[in-house]
Formats: sequence, structure tokens, C-alpha cells
Amino acid sequence: MMNLKSILSKLLLVLSIGVLLPDMASAQSKATWIWYPGDFEVWLSNKMQVRRTEREAVFPPLWQYYSPYALVTFQTEVDIPKPDQVKIYSEGPFQLLLDGVQIYGQPKSITVPAGKHKISFKVYNQEVLPAIYIAGNYVKSDASWKVTNEDKLWIDENGKAQQSGTPWVPVGSWNFDTPVNKPSEFKLTTTPWNAKKTEKTAAGQLVDFGKETFGYIKIHGLKGKGRVALYYGESREEAMDTARCETLDHLSFDGNQPETYTHDGSKAFRYVQVVADASVKYDSISMLYEYLPLEYRGAFKSSDQELNKIWDVSAYTMHLTSREFFIDGIKRDRWVWSGDAYQSYLMNYYLFFDSPSVERTMAALRGKDPVTAHVNIIMDYSLYWFVGVYDYYLHTGDTKFIKTFYPRMKSLMDFCLGRRNKNGFLEPLEGDWVFIDWANGLPKTGEVSFEQMLLARSLEAMAVSAEIAGEKDDQKEYQKLASDLKTKLFDVFWDKKENVMKHQRIDGKMQDIVTRYANMFGIFFNYFTEEQKQSVKNKVLLNKDVLQITTPYMRFYELEALCAMGEQDYVLKEMKDYWGGMLNEGATSFWEEYNPNKKGTEHLTMYGRPYGKSLCHAWGASPIYLLGKYYLGVKPLSPGYETWAIEPNLGGLKWMEGKVPTPNGEISVYASTSEVKVKSPIGTGTLRLKSKSKPSVKGAKVQALGNGVYEIQILKGKEYTVKYSL
Amino acid sequence: MMNLKSILSKLLLVLSIGVLLPDMASAQSKATWIWYPGDFEVWLSNKMQVRRTEREAVFPPLWQYYSPYALVTFQTEVDIPKPDQVKIYSEGPFQLLLDGVQIYGQPKSITVPAGKHKISFKVYNQEVLPAIYIAGNYVKSDASWKVTNEDKLWIDENGKAQQSGTPWVPVGSWNFDTPVNKPSEFKLTTTPWNAKKTEKTAAGQLVDFGKETFGYIKIHGLKGKGRVALYYGESREEAMDTARCETLDHLSFDGNQPETYTHDGSKAFRYVQVVADASVKYDSISMLYEYLPLEYRGAFKSSDQELNKIWDVSAYTMHLTSREFFIDGIKRDRWVWSGDAYQSYLMNYYLFFDSPSVERTMAALRGKDPVTAHVNIIMDYSLYWFVGVYDYYLHTGDTKFIKTFYPRMKSLMDFCLGRRNKNGFLEPLEGDWVFIDWANGLPKTGEVSFEQMLLARSLEAMAVSAEIAGEKDDQKEYQKLASDLKTKLFDVFWDKKENVMKHQRIDGKMQDIVTRYANMFGIFFNYFTEEQKQSVKNKVLLNKDVLQITTPYMRFYELEALCAMGEQDYVLKEMKDYWGGMLNEGATSFWEEYNPNKKGTEHLTMYGRPYGKSLCHAWGASPIYLLGKYYLGVKPLSPGYETWAIEPNLGGLKWMEGKVPTPNGEISVYASTSEVKVKSPIGTGTLRLKSKSKPSVKGAKVQALGNGVYEIQILKGKEYTVKYSL
Repeated sequence: MMNLKSILSKLLLVLSIGVLLPDMASAQSKATWIWYPGDFEVWLSNKMQVRRTEREAVFPPLWQYYSPYALVTFQTEVDIPKPDQVKIYSEGPFQLLLDGVQIYGQPKSITVPAGKHKISFKVYNQEVLPAIYIAGNYVKSDASWKVTNEDKLWIDENGKAQQSGTPWVPVGSWNFDTPVNKPSEFKLTTTPWNAKKTEKTAAGQLVDFGKETFGYIKIHGLKGKGRVALYYGESREEAMDTARCETLDHLSFDGNQPETYTHDGSKAFRYVQVVADASVKYDSISMLYEYLPLEYRGAFKSSDQELNKIWDVSAYTMHLTSREFFIDGIKRDRWVWSGDAYQSYLMNYYLFFDSPSVERTMAALRGKDPVTAHVNIIMDYSLYWFVGVYDYYLHTGDTKFIKTFYPRMKSLMDFCLGRRNKNGFLEPLEGDWVFIDWANGLPKTGEVSFEQMLLARSLEAMAVSAEIAGEKDDQKEYQKLASDLKTKLFDVFWDKKENVMKHQRIDGKMQDIVTRYANMFGIFFNYFTEEQKQSVKNKVLLNKDVLQITTPYMRFYELEALCAMGEQDYVLKEMKDYWGGMLNEGATSFWEEYNPNKKGTEHLTMYGRPYGKSLCHAWGASPIYLLGKYYLGVKPLSPGYETWAIEPNLGGLKWMEGKVPTPNGEISVYASTSEVKVKSPIGTGTLRLKSKSKPSVKGAKVQALGNGVYEIQILKGKEYTVKYSL
Repeated sequence: MMNLKSILSKLLLVLSIGVLLPDMASAQSKATWIWYPGDFEVWLSNKMQVRRTEREAVFPPLWQYYSPYALVTFQTEVDIPKPDQVKIYSEGPFQLLLDGVQIYGQPKSITVPAGKHKISFKVYNQEVLPAIYIAGNYVKSDASWKVTNEDKLWIDENGKAQQSGTPWVPVGSWNFDTPVNKPSEFKLTTTPWNAKKTEKTAAGQLVDFGKETFGYIKIHGLKGKGRVALYYGESREEAMDTARCETLDHLSFDGNQPETYTHDGSKAFRYVQVVADASVKYDSISMLYEYLPLEYRGAFKSSDQELNKIWDVSAYTMHLTSREFFIDGIKRDRWVWSGDAYQSYLMNYYLFFDSPSVERTMAALRGKDPVTAHVNIIMDYSLYWFVGVYDYYLHTGDTKFIKTFYPRMKSLMDFCLGRRNKNGFLEPLEGDWVFIDWANGLPKTGEVSFEQMLLARSLEAMAVSAEIAGEKDDQKEYQKLASDLKTKLFDVFWDKKENVMKHQRIDGKMQDIVTRYANMFGIFFNYFTEEQKQSVKNKVLLNKDVLQITTPYMRFYELEALCAMGEQDYVLKEMKDYWGGMLNEGATSFWEEYNPNKKGTEHLTMYGRPYGKSLCHAWGASPIYLLGKYYLGVKPLSPGYETWAIEPNLGGLKWMEGKVPTPNGEISVYASTSEVKVKSPIGTGTLRLKSKSKPSVKGAKVQALGNGVYEIQILKGKEYTVKYSL
């Protein structure tokens, strides 16, 4: 009979076998294509962004394109129990070293003997990017491999290998999990989509796909020789206006084409007008809808049908703009803009919670070194990038991105800090674009308080990141820079008499102007005291004399600030007015800009062009974020939802229910005026409620905070039903 | 009748028309393909260097590959007398703006109206590099265009274009002067070359091409199906040793191949052993010799037949290694090494004077930013790069390279200066390779005097370059850094008792070792006083107890130092021994290393491999340089041969004659013991002669300097025959 000690020692034996054979675990794991981190994103974003066209002219970005490293060395160390037959797939010719010894030729597989081994592949690919897929039973390319762009491995005069100072970093990967699924051949998913309606036009045929969409036009039953023109329109008017529509394609057929033709360029449209030479005949037009396969993990439904439609159309708008990367608009730009993407990250946390999309976008935006201009050349857009990294960490708890990209965070921050003026404030230098918002008459020169506030937040993000990256000294330095800047921000821009944040100082002279920007960010950055918040709310946010915001872009933050101040009732009305207004105009996705005072086709114009406005713009989808964070009321308090808060606010609705995604499942919420139900698969939540009487709940304690506010701790896996009275 | 005034005014009219119509001149000039400066070189060197193979394994460099910018904007401003029909050729899709207005589509030509216009092309090419060829009567792409990698041209909310801080630089170009001659399709020239001898081997056939060569094997009368193996050898032994030869190719034929097959991979060899399956038949083997078309502008002939052969074989060695870039060895490395290339530059000035090859090589070596390691990761190789830029300016007088690359000169120097220790000396940090020379037992750690001397010279090169680039403050700073470092170099390393330069200091302790390196460079850098030079010559250079030099690489400088001390007689004997020794061993090109004490196949070994040694190595060709500079005795004194010196030294020869190329024609020299003839197409030369009696010459004055030394001024275009007595 075994005594406890012998049981324990057997148990330890089992455990230690587990420890001794870590590769038994990896024998279960999947091989995947790997590359230098960020390089796939650089390559793909270069390729994608140049697909922007204006009436068949290529329209590439105005900022620098970085390049993938054309030559990189991948390396792993393994300790395997048995010899392993390992298959090798490579994008580009490679040099293979097994334990430092070169294997001749370009083998398609090798046998790695049992035991400890160092395996390295130096891969060259100047056309696309170097990548490998290595698949044995034990030896597999995965996120645990390291990579470098300069291996510095040289052979001295005696034939002895020397290597030092090699900058190894963790590899990049995504979901390229089979050998044939090569990074260089990445394509979004497509699915057939039929026209909803067709009508004859003077010159041809107008095809209506029923709502905003994106993809490749297909022509069925195509016969004959000649030309076919495709005029795309997000609106009927645009597709009909062949001389002025923003996108079009001229096709030419020699008579030998297949009967079903699929165009190779994707476009955004609801309508397409097809104008064919008389010598060309076809039966019908359809399209291949192109999209990134994503799960709608967030959900929202309420007693208000219009609001539900706003959420649905927002989610669709968000999906259309969540592609290779989070882009701004699908018709025109198709570029990756940091300010726009920052909002997409936030919306994504309440809809898809697709971390790879956030990582891809942040990597593409940051590019590489040297840093010679702001991200997208816009000062505020460099700063949003830092805040985006912090938010990513907060929502996902993932530290790998920060650990891998910390050197690039630092070089971008060095660039920003190097552009401060003698007062320590960011003030635009040559080549710096200060965007803030599209707003007529918005002053953007000199020292603008909004930019300093974003810089302070960015420095805080750097401090947190430095700690994660193990850079203690940096952490201290960034923390000090942040707190000094915050002090200075208030010393200079806070108007102690009016109790609001001023907008701008030029050559040391404070300008007599207050705008919403710094004032609303100060609220949800929690930079203001409670008293300051109240003053700002009344004197700025709810003051119609302060320069109005007309873009959904800044509307996002304005409404967020109001929600953060508990103005959900007011914001709900605003949402219904503003987004409901677009729906009333027939929107099937939300727009780049909306001005309720405009009429008819005026809504289509922008940038002085009749169809210049994007009718599907990511920043138009903010209700997803607002409804998830400030109505369902769920948000992380510590990284990866280890702790989180839930504070449902009906904002005048009778009831609402929905889901908020987390790194591990979704938090479900139902709330009416008398009942709140919560269930979470993750972390420890704190439910906060206002109630006329003390709420009741089974299996949890209700803590009274005073003033009719109560808190209930939500443990994961349990369902709570709370009775209360609003 | 016209008076003088009216004649003058008519003349002025003619002149002013010339000034008013600068584009009339450009109407005569050629259009050429243009790109971002250095990007073609980065792309081509990436491609070329990865062609190194070892027994069919790809063997890419150990240092970082930079990439061309995938997106660049070319721009020109023109003022043209007539409308111009301009043809457009582009490598990659482009966006064309004429006076800021986008031209739709991808036009193959446009009409530019008469008058002033700004034309810009934004071109995207991620696979190769963006390049354009624009050809009208007046509007033509040429070296006058500007280019940027971030145009920062954005449109504000009112549709107004904004642009500032755009880093424009002059474009790069070479000789791609027709539309079809695209940069992406660059290939060296080839010409057919027949075998000199064939013989049967046990397994197949050994083909001897008579001398070292480079190119593509051709198989004639090829029939059947099966495999053919090619075993290359720089020596007969290597080609016969199928298991250990350094390069080989396995070909496979399916029976449907053409009768004449040309292999697509070029190799270096004199011999090839062809081993075919019995099922494959062929008639004969030839090759396509591949080379860079270069004119042999330098020449040397003398009374010594062996020396003449040494010059000829040196020139051939130099030509074989002057390819896409100046490379080290043609069989094995095929990489661009800065230390090796630096010697090629110097030899080039006495043979081809091909400036584009120097520029291409310097651009490829420098790459781009950021600088994260030394050039080729070797400390001395970063420093040779700077000295090479200075020498390029001295020989060619060209300032465009420096003006274009000055920012990259500066960032590389920043990197170097950032790696100094607390004493201000370069001392290897992690990842720094100190090469100096292949020599057994040569100490390379700590503070090595040789590296400090190269740094001092590099700082002097930076000072000159800063002045050319118009950076006055930089010029002063670099000048001061250089002079401070020189002072410190002598304070620390000059042994005042022994009157020699010591080799090394470790942790503040001077090591008791003297080597040749710093001592020989100190002579021809002219860092030593006359007294110091004499001491160094006797105690180091001519002292057999000081660590001997066995590589032609450092032999180059050792012999140069001795020549600079007037030891031409001694050096001539050394040349005949050393290079004559290789010829006696059957060399048809000069080697990476030669040790006269070795026998037979021992000469083929290196790096512990039986055929590891390169038998055609650029650094083996130094007699070209020595004979041109120190026997014919011609060298520039000011940039571009505006002034130059000639000091013929027969070194014991009865007579010699030759040519030294300059930016504008060749300087011809003949010298015997009684007569010197000189003719130059350029600058003002100073002929210096030792003569027992005062030399006589027609049409020039002879100036006596004392001690039997005389000087004669050489004006361009005149032939001088000087009678003297040696």
C-alpha cells in the first residue's frame, strides 16, 4: 500500500516528465507560417493602400512606405524525444543550418535527430517577404521561434563561426496554418451576392445590390468583342453620373473571354451602372462580396427599434471597414489612418474583439525605422497610436505586442519628444499636419492644448509599456515626463476663472478660444477633477456657442464624454437624431460626415466634389462602442478583463440586452428598469447600480455606497439576477 | 556699319536667348530611367549577393539588407517653348499630377502645354523598385529631376493642397537610356567563349576554358532525358573532386529541352567537369562569358616581360571582379565588402576610371538608415567607406555623390562616434567585427591604433564632405574631432623611445606589440614626420621579426608604404617574387592569399576546405595601382586632376610606358633612364625628377629644388620630352 509520500513522488515524476518533454506539448500544436514581426503587415498595407483609385488613376498614400526585410534568419532550439522528419516550405531561397552546419541544396525536408538542436533558416525574398512553414512531429514553425534581420554570423580565418550582438526578436505570425496558405497569397474571403434590382438606363443598365457592399463585379453570359464600362456608386446618383463618379473601370474583351467574367479589382458600391458596346452581350451582373471573416461577438438589442437598427448598421459599417486592416472609408481612401483606426480598435472591443486585426493595424501604422514623420504625417495620429497600444493591452492583457514593438514605440516617441518647442509643448514643425477634426475655422497653429493632452496620455502609455518591456529606467523617465507635462498643461491652458480648458497659445499669448476637444478628452482621460468635469460639461459640452462638431469622428468622443458624465438620456436622443437622421436619408452604412441641415444630393458632396463623401466610414459606427461601454456599461478595469466594471444605464430605454466580448467569451447583460442580469466567463466584475431601494440578488452581497448607489461583485461562470428599482 | 556697341548688343541678344531657353539644350540631352538615389544599387546588390552558393546551398550575407523605397514621387519643373508630346514609361503604377492636377488613368503619353509647369509622378513598385523614363522633346527624365519617399501632399477639408517639409533629393540614374532598357531587367553583357581543351574523365568529361572565367555553361546538341551534373573548378583538382568542389549544379532534362541549352546560373571557373546520365547525349560544351563592359584606359608596359604579365593578369583579375559592383572573389563570396572594394576603387582609378562602378559600390555598401551595425559589420570597413568617398572626390572632382549621400555619411559617422569608449577610441562592442587582416595571432581586442588612425582619416573625409554639402558647422566639428583624435593617437600609441607606433592598449595598459598596420598607413596618410617615417621604415616595414603579412590585401598597403618611401627597387623585386610566384604556379588571375612556402594543392586550401581559396580575388590585383601611382608615378593633387603630380620611378627597369586615366582622357608617360615623355589632356601637372645633371626640355622651365631634384610644369595638351640622367 502506498503512503502519501510515495503517491506524491509518483505524481512529481509524472509532472517532471511533463516538464522534461515540453515538446510533447508542441507535438500537439499547429505549425504556421512565420515572418519578421510587422513585415507582413508592412507589405500588405503597402499593397492594399495603393489600391485606392480615383477614376482609374492610382492614388497612393502621401506618407512613407516602409519595406519588409528582404533577408532574415529564423531560429529555434528544440529538444526532441525521437528523430523528426521535418518538411520545409519557404517563401524565397534559404540557407539551412542544423547545429551550425550548413545543409547543402534547398531540401524539401530534413531529418532532425533526437535530442537538443539549434535550427536556423536564412531566407531571402526581395519581391514579397521572407517566410517559412516548418512542419515535423516536434519541430514546427510557430510563435516561439526567433528571427533577426542581421545574423552577424561570420567565419574567422580558422573556419570558426563567430556571432555576437545579433538582435533576435520573436517572429510574427497570424493564421496561415497550412503549407499552401502562403502569406504572399493572402486574400480576403469572398462569397457570391446577387443584384436586388436592375433597371435600364439611357446608356446601359443600373444594378442595385440593395445596400452598401464591397467586392468584385461578375458578368454572366458574356459574349462578343468590345468594351464594357462599370460606373460605381455608393448612391444611385453617383453611378448614374458617369462623368463624375469617383470610381469606374473600363474593361475590354477580345471575344475569347470566358462566359463568366470576374473583374480583378474590388470596389465599394451599392450601385453599378454597366455600359457595354453594342457588340458585347451579357445576361446578368452579380458580384463577389469580399470580407474579413469575423464573428459578431458583441450584441445589442433594446426596446427601441430605431436604436437597434442603428446598432445593426453600425456593426455592418464596422465590418465593411474591418478588412486587411481597419481602414477609414471603403470607397475612396482605403488607407490606414491612425486616428480612424484608433476608433475602430475601440469599436472592435465591443463587436468582434479580433485582436489580430488590432495588431495588424498597429504594426502597419507604425512601420519601421527610421521615423522621419508623424504617423500619417499627422501629429495627433502619432499620439493616438500610443494610446491604442495601451488600450490593446488593457482590453486583451496581451504583452507580446508591446514586448516585440517596444523599440519602435520608443523610436516614435523619441521623434515626438524631439519635436517639442522650448516650452516642452508640441507645436507643428515643417511637415507636421495637425488634424484634430474637419471643422471650418478650427485654429491648429501654435501650442494647442488638445495635442499636449494626447502627448501626456501617450507618455503614460509609454511608461506602462516600458515596465512590460522590462525597461525600468525608461518607465521612470516616461512617468516623470507625463506628470510634468500634465502639470504644465493645467498651469498654462486651464482657465481658473472660467474653469474650462483653453484651446491655443501662440508665441506665449493665450488665445481667447475654447473648443470641445481637450475638454471632452479631459473627461474620459480622467484628467479633470469632479468639479472641473461639471464645469466643462455645462460650459463647453452642452454649450451651443462653442464650435459645433459635425463629423462622426469627433462626435464619437463628444458623446463618450457626455456618457462618462452620466448623460446617457441626452446622448440617446442625440444618437437617434444623428444616426437616425442618416437612416432616414436611406443610409445602409454610416457616413464620413452628416449635417442634418443639408438636403438631398448635398449629402453626397465633400472636398468640393459631388460624390466626394464616403458613405461607409468606420468612424460612423461609434454607437457600437457607446452602447456597449456606456449603456450595457461594461469595461475592463485591469488588463485582459482580470477585473472589470459593469454599470448598466438605460438612458431612457425600457430594456436592453446584449453581449460584450472579452479575451475569453462574452459578458451577457440584460437590463430593464427593475432587473439586471449578468453572466461573465472571465475575471471579477463589479456591478454598480443606482436604485431607489437596496437591490436584491441571490448568491452575492450588495454593498451600499451611499446616495442610492450599490455594488455587487460578479464572479465568473455564475449568473446573477438583480432586482432593483430605477 | 555697325559700331562696337551694336555688335556687343547683338552678341548679348544671342547670349540671352541661350539663357532664356535653357530647355533648348535639354532638347538635345538624353532621357534616362531615374530612381531614388541608391535604391537601384540596394536592390541589385541584394539580388547579386544572394547568388553566392556553396554546393547548391544559397549563402546570403551576414549583414542587413536594406530595401528600395516602394513608393516615391518624382518631380520636375519645366519651362518649354512649345507644347510637348511626352511618352511615359514606368516601372510600377503611377499617379501623375500636372501642375497639381491629377491626370486620370495610367496614360502612355501626355501633352504638356508650352510654358512653366510642375510635373510629378508618384510611382509604386514593391516587387522591384519604382522608376520612370519620360521622353518628350523638352520634358525628359534625367539627373536634374528630384525625388522623395514621402511627398506629404495632402488635401485639407476645403479641397486645398498642402505640402511642407518634403525631403526632396536628386534622383539616381546610370545608363538606362532607352525605354526597353529597364532597371529591373539589368543584366551584365555576355559573349560566347569556347573551350580550349576537353578530356575524358571516369565519370564524364573535363572541359578547360584556358583561364579563369565567369559565366553560363552552354550545352550543344543536347538530346535525351535525364540528369547532367556540372562540377566547377578554378583548378583542375577542384573540378575533378565532385564531392568537395565549392560550386556545382544539377540539371534535369525531360527530353523536350532545346538542343542548345544555356544554364541560368552564372559561376566562376576555369574548368568544368560534366557528368551526364547515359540517357543524355550532347555534342559539346561552351560558355557565355559574362562581364561589365569597361574600357581599359590605363596601360603599362616595360622592359620586364614578367612584370608586364603581372600587370596584364592583374588587369584581368580586376575586370573579373568589377561586375554589378566591385566584389571580392568571383567563385565563392560574390559579396560586396567595403575593405576589398576600397582597393578596387584605387585600382579602378588606374585602369578603368569607371566612376559609376565606384558610385554603385559605395551606394550599395552604405545602404540606408537606420544604421544598426558597421558596414559588413566590420569596424574597419565602415571607416574605409568614408576614405573611399574622399578618394572618389579627389580623383573625379565629382561633388554630386557627396551632396546626395551626405545625410547617410553623417548617420554612419554618428553610429561610429557613438561606439567610442570613454577615452574617445573605437573599441569593439558586441556585434563589431575587427578585421584588419587575415593573420594568425593578430590581436584585435581593446583599443587598436590602426582603427583609430582610420577613424581620424574618416573624420577628415567628413570635414571635406561637410564643406561640399554646405554644412559649415559640421565641417568645423569634424575637423576638430579629427585633429583631437590624431593628437590622442600619437600621445597614446606613439612609442617615443622606439619611434614606432604601438599596436594595442587594453584596459589602459599598452601592450608590448608592434605591427605593420598603423605604421604603414601612417606613411601614406602622411601622418608621420619625415623622421618618424624613416624610423618606421627601418624598424617595422623592413624588419622581418614584425608579424609578416601574407594576404595580398595588406600586401597592397605594405608595398604602397614602401613605394611612398622611395623603395621602388625593393618593391619591384617583391612584386616579381610574390605575383611572379603565383604566375609560376599557373595562375591566370590573382589569388586571395599566396604563401610561397606552400606546395602543389596546398595552394588551393583555405578556411579548412580543400578548395576554399578564391583564385580570382580583387585584392590580388594591386600591381595595377602600384605601377600606375608609384612607377609611372601619376596622382591627383587636387580634386578631379585640376592639379596633379608625376614622379616616374623605374625601380630598376630599363624603361616603362603607360597611361593613367583621368576624368578627361589619359595622361601618357614614357620613362627610360635618360628620357621622360609626358602628355596630359587635363589640369596642371608637376613633373618631379631626380637627375645627375639638370634635365633639358623644350617649351618648359626646369626648376631645381636642390639635392639633384628638379621640377617641370606640365600644361595640358602639350607633349614634353625631358632629357635627364638617372
